[in-house]
Amino acid sequence: MAKENFVEQIADIEKDFPQWYTDVVIKTKLVDYGPVKGTMVIRPYGYAVWENIQRELDTRFKATGHENAYFPLLIPMSFFTKEAEHVEGFAPEVAVVTHAGGEELSEPLAVRPTSETIFGSMYSKWLQSYRDLPIKINQWANVMRWEKTTRPFLRTSEFLWQEGHTAHATEEEAMEETMQMLGVYKEFAENCLAIPVITGRKTEKEKFAGAVATFGMEAMMKDGKSLQAGTSHYLGQNFAKSFDIKFLNKDGAQKYAYTSSWGVSTRLIGALIMAHGDQRGLVFPPVVAPVQVVIVPIASKKPGVLETCAELKEKLQKAGVRVQLDDTDNSPGWKFNEWEMKGVPLRIELGPRDIEEGKALIFRRDTLEKNAYSLNGIVEEVNSLLTTVQKDMLESARVRRDERITYADDLDGILKGVEAGKFVKAGWCGCRECEDKVKTYAQATARVFAEGETKEKCAICGKPSKHVIIFARAY
Amino acid sequence: MAKENFVEQIADIEKDFPQWYTDVVIKTKLVDYGPVKGTMVIRPYGYAVWENIQRELDTRFKATGHENAYFPLLIPMSFFTKEAEHVEGFAPEVAVVTHAGGEELSEPLAVRPTSETIFGSMYSKWLQSYRDLPIKINQWANVMRWEKTTRPFLRTSEFLWQEGHTAHATEEEAMEETMQMLGVYKEFAENCLAIPVITGRKTEKEKFAGAVATFGMEAMMKDGKSLQAGTSHYLGQNFAKSFDIKFLNKDGAQKYAYTSSWGVSTRLIGALIMAHGDQRGLVFPPVVAPVQVVIVPIASKKPGVLETCAELKEKLQKAGVRVQLDDTDNSPGWKFNEWEMKGVPLRIELGPRDIEEGKALIFRRDTLEKNAYSLNGIVEEVNSLLTTVQKDMLESARVRRDERITYADDLDGILKGVEAGKFVKAGWCGCRECEDKVKTYAQATARVFAEGETKEKCAICGKPSKHVIIFARAY
Repeated sequence: MAKENFVEQIADIEKDFPQWYTDVVIKTKLVDYGPVKGTMVIRPYGYAVWENIQRELDTRFKATGHENAYFPLLIPMSFFTKEAEHVEGFAPEVAVVTHAGGEELSEPLAVRPTSETIFGSMYSKWLQSYRDLPIKINQWANVMRWEKTTRPFLRTSEFLWQEGHTAHATEEEAMEETMQMLGVYKEFAENCLAIPVITGRKTEKEKFAGAVATFGMEAMMKDGKSLQAGTSHYLGQNFAKSFDIKFLNKDGAQKYAYTSSWGVSTRLIGALIMAHGDQRGLVFPPVVAPVQVVIVPIASKKPGVLETCAELKEKLQKAGVRVQLDDTDNSPGWKFNEWEMKGVPLRIELGPRDIEEGKALIFRRDTLEKNAYSLNGIVEEVNSLLTTVQKDMLESARVRRDERITYADDLDGILKGVEAGKFVKAGWCGCRECEDKVKTYAQATARVFAEGETKEKCAICGKPSKHVIIFARAY
Repeated sequence: MAKENFVEQIADIEKDFPQWYTDVVIKTKLVDYGPVKGTMVIRPYGYAVWENIQRELDTRFKATGHENAYFPLLIPMSFFTKEAEHVEGFAPEVAVVTHAGGEELSEPLAVRPTSETIFGSMYSKWLQSYRDLPIKINQWANVMRWEKTTRPFLRTSEFLWQEGHTAHATEEEAMEETMQMLGVYKEFAENCLAIPVITGRKTEKEKFAGAVATFGMEAMMKDGKSLQAGTSHYLGQNFAKSFDIKFLNKDGAQKYAYTSSWGVSTRLIGALIMAHGDQRGLVFPPVVAPVQVVIVPIASKKPGVLETCAELKEKLQKAGVRVQLDDTDNSPGWKFNEWEMKGVPLRIELGPRDIEEGKALIFRRDTLEKNAYSLNGIVEEVNSLLTTVQKDMLESARVRRDERITYADDLDGILKGVEAGKFVKAGWCGCRECEDKVKTYAQATARVFAEGETKEKCAICGKPSKHVIIFARAY
């Protein structure tokens, strides 16, 4: 059977999750490996997901008063050395342009790994008075970080992202912005990607190089590992001081601004795959699915079948549904497998008998349920089903995740938890040594602080606990 | 007077067009110089124009069956040497990454100046059978060409663009695609940018490095110089042979594909500025204007004025108009100048007396006319005026251009024509020597063939003419 063949092509999701991931991303044509090691080609099916993500986020950024701009790719290497922590964090990963136009450059140029420094240098030039504040700019761009081990979408030498960079008159405003954008990310992750996320502050060890504080959102993948899906940084006056971002305040005094930065990347596509995928392949939530509905004609050579399918396609298209009609020569069974693998939320099957009876079968990719619906009012039915699928996918992901959150009171408990594919909450004294021990002993890292929770003792050293940390193995 | 001050800040458009351009792009905050020589920062006001251009073009690309994707920025240097003409054309301008991740790379990597080679290498991998054809992919990306003399938007070491790359089974289909996209560009330039363009084939000297034939669209700027606003290349089997882009045709034989590529860039923003701008600054056509309507309250502290303005703003916004209400403390005169400089198509002035009389004044940036309109039905009036402005701007640009197209029968005639800021049509024998003579003698280049026109003699050497060429000085 064709179906069997397809399943065989994808590695067992339970036994070999990494291979399952690779099989799925390549076979569904989301992505391919580029000719340079560690690079990826985002193919049209994968890029369509990114376009949907962009549209949803961009609307939210603009609604919260941000504007888009574009800053240069190449940054003088000297910029990085201006912020001590920043250079330490990024220098080892930087790709460097040394020659251009047939000559050696007088100063080597970094291909941006992130743009705090170049935004900072321009903000310093543009900013004069408190009247110019806040500055709230976002850019959609490619960035480059030379990584040793790479995986499509999750970790590649080049990736696409957005990076917001803002400057404010006060600490409070900059912190408010930092938290607002973390909130925007969370709402987007849950309502568009159907991925429940835990947001919270990161430890000093895990924070962004150059930030005062980093807040992240963590998503649980189907193997129980965590994926950092977005971060929002409160930068205090660190970059303002390094790049001289100053303004004249109301009292006529020169003051350093407070800045923030925040970003999400094409990693989110990896999150979508690993949060929702199953043995048959991808499962896309409708809001970001490249194709929301596929129509598969049954006995398509019978009179009237293709015509009815085409009419239905047009009606759905007019109603704003991203729909495709598969009128290729392949068998219905082959098409079912193909589109299930590609994660299309709804499949409509329509054959001569269905048409006669005035109905169609609709298959839900998320629950694998198939039900008959009257062709009258099917457009409304499809729209309502898409809403239901979106909601249900978030809900099942939440149930899956919540079942896999546990507590531990010692290192063994943390190890046992993460080995079982869980997020483990544990008390922490706050010292780097204990954090490192968890890494060595359990190959797990501190993801975020579990806000609002308290524990008496540090699970590692037994001293009084300052924070509850969510430990997990992570991508 | 404030107005005078503004005008003084911008160089005289008649006397010093280049300085006028620089003043306008910097003062209106469209763009700024980046820290690395030859780079630009596209500021929010400029990027908003690009977003409008992107939206309009992207819709057209998708409507003609293209999909978006993203290919890596870094291309192995060895790829360039595979197509002999291509490497010759681009190698001198390439920026090269030699170090990454703290190590010297085994092979230097080019920062893409254009992506025919990397698309070619992937198409070679993906393409199996004639069933896979055509492949029609576009990407929105940054590219880098190291230029000696640079000017914001017109020529910068890095710029943003889109590049379409397609592969077809036959010569005819590839040529049809090449011409279709040239047509899409022309329709877009005229209907969205309000810039009339002349499309046609380019000479061998001016064609894209590696193409069989290049077709360009040329736009006349206000100084009479030409700006190449977009190109569409028929690549024949050149890249297919260099990159082994082969497929099994219906008869089971291996065949090389035929490919095309086409692109437009942020240069178009430069075209907009120089095709429409005047002494007061920018003049944007409504379709791509970041702000289409600005509302300026008169005597804004008088009761009811700001409220009425805010209501009107909301109504226009709901009707899909990009509108801004300038409720800052600046004087109305200051605001008039500011928004005129920024090229906003319509300005609505609304004061206590207007409100009493139930009317508003609307100022048209393109014609500088100001008329009163009833507040009842003002939304419809604004929409209809925006349509009129868009149409009128194209029409006046067309008249301006057509007045400046002339003919010449000898080198002196060509020189006189281009010195007077004209496009000069002249017969050409087809030889490179004559083309070079025009360059030396008149500092003018062959822009495109004047399709359908004939001349008896070559204006340069007097031998029989093969083509009529449009010669012009160009950006």
